[in-house]
Amino acid sequence: MNNLELDYSLTDAFVSQNDMEGMKGKVEEAKKMLLDRSCPGKDYTGWIDLPVDYDKDEFGRIKKAAERIRGMCDAFVVVGIGGSYLGAKSAIEFLNHSFYNNLSDDSRKAPQIYFAGNNISEVYLGDLLQILEKKDVCVNVISKSGTTLESAIAFRVLSEFMEKKYGADASKRIFATTDKARGALKELSDEKGYETFVVPDDVGGRYSVLTAVGLLPIAVSGVDIDALMAGAAAMREKCLEKEFYENDAMLYAAIRNILYSKGKTVEIVANYEPSMHYIGEWWKQLFAESEGKEGKGLYTATIDLTTDLHSQGQYIQEGPRIMFETVISVGSASCGIVMKHDENDTDGLNYLEGKSIAYINGKALEGTQKAHVDAGVPNLLIKIAGRDAKSLGELYYFMMFACGMSGLVLGINPFDQPGVEYYKRNIFTLLERPGY
Amino acid sequence: MNNLELDYSLTDAFVSQNDMEGMKGKVEEAKKMLLDRSCPGKDYTGWIDLPVDYDKDEFGRIKKAAERIRGMCDAFVVVGIGGSYLGAKSAIEFLNHSFYNNLSDDSRKAPQIYFAGNNISEVYLGDLLQILEKKDVCVNVISKSGTTLESAIAFRVLSEFMEKKYGADASKRIFATTDKARGALKELSDEKGYETFVVPDDVGGRYSVLTAVGLLPIAVSGVDIDALMAGAAAMREKCLEKEFYENDAMLYAAIRNILYSKGKTVEIVANYEPSMHYIGEWWKQLFAESEGKEGKGLYTATIDLTTDLHSQGQYIQEGPRIMFETVISVGSASCGIVMKHDENDTDGLNYLEGKSIAYINGKALEGTQKAHVDAGVPNLLIKIAGRDAKSLGELYYFMMFACGMSGLVLGINPFDQPGVEYYKRNIFTLLERPGY
Repeated sequence: MNNLELDYSLTDAFVSQNDMEGMKGKVEEAKKMLLDRSCPGKDYTGWIDLPVDYDKDEFGRIKKAAERIRGMCDAFVVVGIGGSYLGAKSAIEFLNHSFYNNLSDDSRKAPQIYFAGNNISEVYLGDLLQILEKKDVCVNVISKSGTTLESAIAFRVLSEFMEKKYGADASKRIFATTDKARGALKELSDEKGYETFVVPDDVGGRYSVLTAVGLLPIAVSGVDIDALMAGAAAMREKCLEKEFYENDAMLYAAIRNILYSKGKTVEIVANYEPSMHYIGEWWKQLFAESEGKEGKGLYTATIDLTTDLHSQGQYIQEGPRIMFETVISVGSASCGIVMKHDENDTDGLNYLEGKSIAYINGKALEGTQKAHVDAGVPNLLIKIAGRDAKSLGELYYFMMFACGMSGLVLGINPFDQPGVEYYKRNIFTLLERPGY
Repeated sequence: MNNLELDYSLTDAFVSQNDMEGMKGKVEEAKKMLLDRSCPGKDYTGWIDLPVDYDKDEFGRIKKAAERIRGMCDAFVVVGIGGSYLGAKSAIEFLNHSFYNNLSDDSRKAPQIYFAGNNISEVYLGDLLQILEKKDVCVNVISKSGTTLESAIAFRVLSEFMEKKYGADASKRIFATTDKARGALKELSDEKGYETFVVPDDVGGRYSVLTAVGLLPIAVSGVDIDALMAGAAAMREKCLEKEFYENDAMLYAAIRNILYSKGKTVEIVANYEPSMHYIGEWWKQLFAESEGKEGKGLYTATIDLTTDLHSQGQYIQEGPRIMFETVISVGSASCGIVMKHDENDTDGLNYLEGKSIAYINGKALEGTQKAHVDAGVPNLLIKIAGRDAKSLGELYYFMMFACGMSGLVLGINPFDQPGVEYYKRNIFTLLERPGY
């Protein structure tokens, strides 16, 4: 297997050929609207061509800055929230050591990576400052406007910390990813002399992982961002060119809309690798923020398996039949841990002798999908080839393209987020912000 | 505020006084069935009296073993899954430093704590072994039977690692929490000479946080388990003695059943502190595994705020009105990070001058709850006094007692989990386990 594949055979009992034929035209129409930029939210479709049409100069600058950061610090702090951290976090966790920040500096060869500005917890920020006290630190602050409450608060505290620690040199250790021309963070960066990278005008936060927003922190962790872009470009070609029944993104968009129309209200995205947890979180924002509007949209949930079989397993098996499940699996990467023979066999595991743990995990996936399907939970399987940057680039593009089409089929604008103004307005009023 | 409090004023628009009166008798009946042990699953209600009627000798042994472990190792591995890790993980994360495992050994004064056997990822286990290679290690393996697939596999690998590293002394570094008399792990422990602690017969996994299952790892991290038990005991008294309208656990059980009966299908538990993330995960198992049966039960979801306002916020505000929200908040513990004046005020945050970040977070909670309620999402608020063991003990007991009653009102057995057999059988068949 060389590329991402969608296996939807385990939805056969729930989705008929007629259903698919009925949905085919709608997805084709959605794809057409996307590609000729005639859809609602068309001004935010810059992500479509990004993998083949990006700013090569800036891409080079990102790689150089990452290299400089890796040489300059042993703790790198990414300040951002929502789309300004989930892409980077998901790639860094998926492609690096399971205990990345706990590796010794020697075996990691890159700084520890911390996230800030993605909450308003004083305890969290205080604890982070304590950790940073003894480290050499660089900061990447990511915000289109520079006025997002969470990241602005954290960055005001962290930039003060940096200035106290490094004086005038602080500005060489702070990197800003923001609007190319306007906004508080761009202004501040020019004032202070931070190197800046661009959040493009035509790419919304949740579609921004392949811009500087995601790329700089991902590159700092040591991931090959050329391979990431190449994977996305390969998937883009498939998404754009293949016909419906050969186009996995179109099929995924179709099937989730069919299941939604049949009364499924929850989509659970499952993984079988702890390193994929934040891919689920990234997916959750992408779909929930794109589709949850006008009283419509699937509730997006995630589950880590087999971990949560011992938590949600009972509910999935015998609770209300309101959900379907999309498993994202990754081609086996056995590192050579094989079950050995034990003389006493007190734990009764000798029947697994010679089997790798990755093999056992694969069987757990297979057996669990079957149990869920038998219990009335339709299952999709998205297989990516390996735990590598190219495969991840494919997955990112696949999900974004599917999401755009899926939202258009649902009849909403998949590129805006009008609902987020309400809580913001309330918070600013309570905080007595001038003008509120 | 000294104790846990439930504020349900933000459900007023959705739950009438009539609804409450109609539910009152059912919850009272459920409580009675629980307390006179006449309910379905009555053999698994040992958790009810546990905070006042536990094995004091074993409790003393737990504290001594924890002290010994703290002196003996710099990495402590907890091997368990489901109820055998979520209680410990939730307490350790809530009550310790936000970057506990990244603190230097000096400032932590307790070993790093790792979890294993809660997945079947070969990559995860391999990476963990690499970390442990350079550490002094102790292990606590937790399993009633000793044959739970995930933890048995991990423990077979880890015990081999320990024997290679420590020879005969390995058995002094391995602690088993298991059945008092029977089962594979008890047998193995006797064979090898591990010190053992007891998973009581009358306490199911998801209700076991206040047994040795939770207490030993929690104590190793340095948490005061006497205070934890005292909090649980104080809450037990309230739960048992207070009448309906003064009894927060009864009110919570009532309201969630009322909202379920009115068509809400999802309950989202929200926190505003990253350290509370795993309290949500613990809660999810407690309620999903207790109630998700016979086609019934609320889908249990969690959300970290304000983090996920930038992910799920749009959906909560404008998606289908299928959910209600239960916020668990913790009394402010400002550590002195206050917003300062900035001469240029480029970020426009000077209006927050003199405000602590904890204060801002509190306003974010208030404003967000109001926005969600205005959008048709009923909100509950569970306030605990502080980030301390006593408050957490209260919360654990509150949730368990509410869950028992809530499940009985729903008409199911809240103490079994018949559905988990299906996927297990499938997996064993695929793995060609003898007898399957």
